[in-house]
Amino acid sequence: MELLSVYVFPRILVIYLTLKYCKNMPAYIEPRLLKGFRDFLPNSEIIRRNLTENIENTFRSFGFVPIDTPAIEYAEILLGKGGGETEKQIFRFKDNGDRDVALRFDLTVPFARYVALHRNELSFPFKRYHIGKVWRGENAQRGRYREFTQCDFDIIGSDSAAADFEILFLIRTALLNLGLDISIHVNHRGLFNRFLASISLDEKSADILRAVDKLSKVGQEDTFKNLCELAGDTNAKKILDFINAKGSFTEVLNRITELSGGTSPESQRLSSLRDFMLKACDNEDGNNTDPFILNPSITRGLDYYTGVVFETFLNELPDIGSICSGGRYDNLAGLYSKDKELISGVGSSVGLDRLLAALENLNKLPAANKCITAIACCDVEKSGDYQALAQKLRLSSIPCEVFLEEDKQMVKQFISAEKKGMRYVLIPSGDQLFDKITLRDLGARKNIELSFEEAIKMLNPKV
Amino acid sequence: MELLSVYVFPRILVIYLTLKYCKNMPAYIEPRLLKGFRDFLPNSEIIRRNLTENIENTFRSFGFVPIDTPAIEYAEILLGKGGGETEKQIFRFKDNGDRDVALRFDLTVPFARYVALHRNELSFPFKRYHIGKVWRGENAQRGRYREFTQCDFDIIGSDSAAADFEILFLIRTALLNLGLDISIHVNHRGLFNRFLASISLDEKSADILRAVDKLSKVGQEDTFKNLCELAGDTNAKKILDFINAKGSFTEVLNRITELSGGTSPESQRLSSLRDFMLKACDNEDGNNTDPFILNPSITRGLDYYTGVVFETFLNELPDIGSICSGGRYDNLAGLYSKDKELISGVGSSVGLDRLLAALENLNKLPAANKCITAIACCDVEKSGDYQALAQKLRLSSIPCEVFLEEDKQMVKQFISAEKKGMRYVLIPSGDQLFDKITLRDLGARKNIELSFEEAIKMLNPKV
Repeated sequence: MELLSVYVFPRILVIYLTLKYCKNMPAYIEPRLLKGFRDFLPNSEIIRRNLTENIENTFRSFGFVPIDTPAIEYAEILLGKGGGETEKQIFRFKDNGDRDVALRFDLTVPFARYVALHRNELSFPFKRYHIGKVWRGENAQRGRYREFTQCDFDIIGSDSAAADFEILFLIRTALLNLGLDISIHVNHRGLFNRFLASISLDEKSADILRAVDKLSKVGQEDTFKNLCELAGDTNAKKILDFINAKGSFTEVLNRITELSGGTSPESQRLSSLRDFMLKACDNEDGNNTDPFILNPSITRGLDYYTGVVFETFLNELPDIGSICSGGRYDNLAGLYSKDKELISGVGSSVGLDRLLAALENLNKLPAANKCITAIACCDVEKSGDYQALAQKLRLSSIPCEVFLEEDKQMVKQFISAEKKGMRYVLIPSGDQLFDKITLRDLGARKNIELSFEEAIKMLNPKV
Repeated sequence: MELLSVYVFPRILVIYLTLKYCKNMPAYIEPRLLKGFRDFLPNSEIIRRNLTENIENTFRSFGFVPIDTPAIEYAEILLGKGGGETEKQIFRFKDNGDRDVALRFDLTVPFARYVALHRNELSFPFKRYHIGKVWRGENAQRGRYREFTQCDFDIIGSDSAAADFEILFLIRTALLNLGLDISIHVNHRGLFNRFLASISLDEKSADILRAVDKLSKVGQEDTFKNLCELAGDTNAKKILDFINAKGSFTEVLNRITELSGGTSPESQRLSSLRDFMLKACDNEDGNNTDPFILNPSITRGLDYYTGVVFETFLNELPDIGSICSGGRYDNLAGLYSKDKELISGVGSSVGLDRLLAALENLNKLPAANKCITAIACCDVEKSGDYQALAQKLRLSSIPCEVFLEEDKQMVKQFISAEKKGMRYVLIPSGDQLFDKITLRDLGARKNIELSFEEAIKMLNPKV
C-alpha cells in the first residue's frame, strides 16, 4: 500500500499536471469546422461574390438601396411572437452582460424592427435590399447549412399595383441578367379567399391554403383527399377547379374572376399587373408568351402574405423548386410600433445557395471577375521592376499578379498560373524593362514575342 | 376577509392571466439595438460598400483572392493559446447541441485554422484577402463597437523580400486609389533585436519593445524614464539613439545597420525593399521623396511579428493613428498543424471604421455608385410604360428608379428625389411613350425639354 502511494500517486500527479498544462497551453488543436458550417475556398468565394454582385447591380439599377443590421439582437425582438420551429432553431445565449440575445435567423424580422426604429429617417415608398448571413440550428443531416446568406428585397409604404409589378419585374430582370430561362408564377391570395368565401369556406381558409400549398409535393389525388376531409366532396372539386385553371394570363384571370363571384379589387389588381407587364416587357423580347404565369395554385402556405404571391422556377430545372418567392403583406412593423399606422409592402427573397447550385448545374455561372495575367519571376532581385510592369497593366484595367519565387525554367510558374485559372504569363525578356515581352498563352500553350504596348493592347483591347 | 377573497383574488387572476397572455403573444415589443451594435441606413451602407469595393478592386488587381470562414467556430479553436483579453471579450456560448462555441473576434485566428485545414487545396505562395464581420464584447463606453468589419490581406508561403514589398506596395496603391496622402512607416523587428543583442539586452526585448511601442503615446521623456528602469541610463540613451534615427530611407538604414553591428540579413532585407521601392514607384509620380519611411521606432508592441513591421498614417490626419498596420510572421498555422513545417507570411489589416471616419473628415469619400435618375409618376395607370422607359435607361447603364405614387404637381416627387440624393427626374410628356421628355435638373432647378434619345446621351455621355 505504501509502495502504491509512492509510485502511483506521483505519476497521477504528473499526468494531472500534464493535462492541466496542455489545457492551458495546447501544442496542437485539431483544425475542424462545426457541422453545418462552411469555409469558402477562393474559387467558390469568387463565384459567390460574382453572383451577388450581378444581382446587386440589377437592384441598384432599379434604385433599390442596401441596408445592414447587426448579427446579434435581443432574443425578445428576434423571437417576436414566438413560434415553435424558430425557437428551436435559433442560436440564443446570454452575452457577457447577461443579456438574453440571439443571432438573426432571417432578414425579415430585423427589417421589421429596423423600419419601426428608423421610421422617421426613411423616405417612403422605401425600396431596400439586404444581403447578409443568417444562422439556424437546422438539422445538418438534411443537407441544410447552419450559416447561409439571404438576399431580400422589398418595397414598403406603397399599396399600389405599380409596387407589386416592380418587384415582379425586378425578379425577372435580375434573373434574365444571369442568363436564366425562368417562369414567374403569380397569384392573389385575396382572390382565393374571396372564392372560398363564395362557397362559405372562409373560416377554413388557413387549412385549405396549407393543403393547396402542398399540391406540387403530394399530387392532385392526395390534395383532393385532403380537401374532401376539410370541405366535403363538392367543395373539394370546386377548389380543384379553381386552382387548376390553365391558359394565358387573361384566360385564367377571367376564369378565376368568374369563380370568385365577378370583378373585385383583387381581380382588378391582377388585371393591372397584366397591363403593366404587356407595356414593360413588350419591346423587350420578340416572343408572344406571357412573361408572367397566373397560377391559382400558388398560395405560399402559412406565410403572412395578404395580396399577390409569387414563385419563380427555372424552366431547365423545375424540380429544384422556387428560387425566388414572395408576396404582399399588410403590416410589416406592427409588433414593434406603438402607433397603429400600418406599413404594408411587397417583397421577395432569392435563395442564393439554390441559385448557385442551379447556375453551376446549367453551366451558367457568371464570368469570374478574376485576375488571369501574371508576371513571371526570372530573377527575384528584379521584383521592383516586375511590380512596375504590373502596375502599368493595372492602370490599364488589367488585373495582374506578380510571382514572387524565382524559377528560371518557368515550368513551375506556368503550372501554378494554370492552377489559379490564369490565362497569360508575361516574361520580361529584354534588357530594358519595357523593352520586349514574351507572352505565354497558357490555353493555346504557345509563346508570343511582342512589345509591352502590344501586350497591353492584347490583354485589354479597350485601351 | 371573505369579501377580500371574492373581490381581490379574481382580479389577481385577471392580472396574472393578462401578463401570461401578453408574455406569450406580445402586442408590442420595443424596437431597440444592443449597446455597441449598429444599424446602417442606406446612405451609410452605400458609402461603406463603395469603400470596400474600391479597396477590393485594388486587391483583385494584384491577383489577391477572397476567402470566407464561418462566424461561429469551436471556442477551443478561436481561443487557441488563450490569453486574458480575448477570453474576456469573446462571445462564447453553448449551441443547441451543447457544443462550446464562439463568434470569431478577428480574422487572423480563423485564417490560421483555415490554412491548416485546407493546406493541400491551396497553392503557395497564397495571396488572400478577407473582409468580414467580427464580434468583441468591448467596453462600448469607450466608443468601440461590438460588431465591426475587418479587412485582412496576407501573402503566405513566401519568405522573400518580394512578398514583404508587395504587401507594402499594395497598401500604398490601395490608399492612393482612395485619393489619400499617406506615409508608410517601415521597420524590421529582427534588426532591432540584433541591436538589443549587441548591447546584451536581448533577454529583455519583449519589455523594451513594449516601452518603445508606446513612444508616440507617452512621448520621449516618459519613454526614456521607462527605458532607464528596464535597461539603465546608458543603454536607454543608446536605445533612444536607435529609435530616433531620422533622414532618408538610406540614411536611416546606414545608421541602424551600424548601430546593430554592421550588415546582416535583416539590414539586407531592408536594403532590398529600398531597391524594389525605387524601381516600382519610380515612374509613378514625379516627386523625389521616399514612398516609404524607415522608422526604427515602429515595433508593433507585443504582436507576433518577427520580420518587417509597418504602420500607415494619413498626412492630413496623423493624430488618428495608423489606419493600416502589419508585418511578417514566422509560423501562422502552427497551433493547428501536426507536421511542424512552418508557414510564414506577411500581412496587414485595414481599419475600415477609422478609414471611413477619416475619409468623411477629409471630404474624400469615394463617389457613390448610386441611382441619381428617377421617372416621375404622373398617372399610376402608366406604371408599365414608366418601367419600359426606365428599362431602356438601365440597358444603357443608367440606373433609374420609377416612382410608384401618382402626384400631378410633381413637387412631392422632386422633394422625394432630392432627399434620396438624386440629380434628375424624367417626366414623360409626349403622347407617345418615347416621344418627348421633360428632364428636371434638381441641382440647377430647371427643366429641359428633349427627346428620349437626347436624354440618354445626356445622362450617360459614354453611350
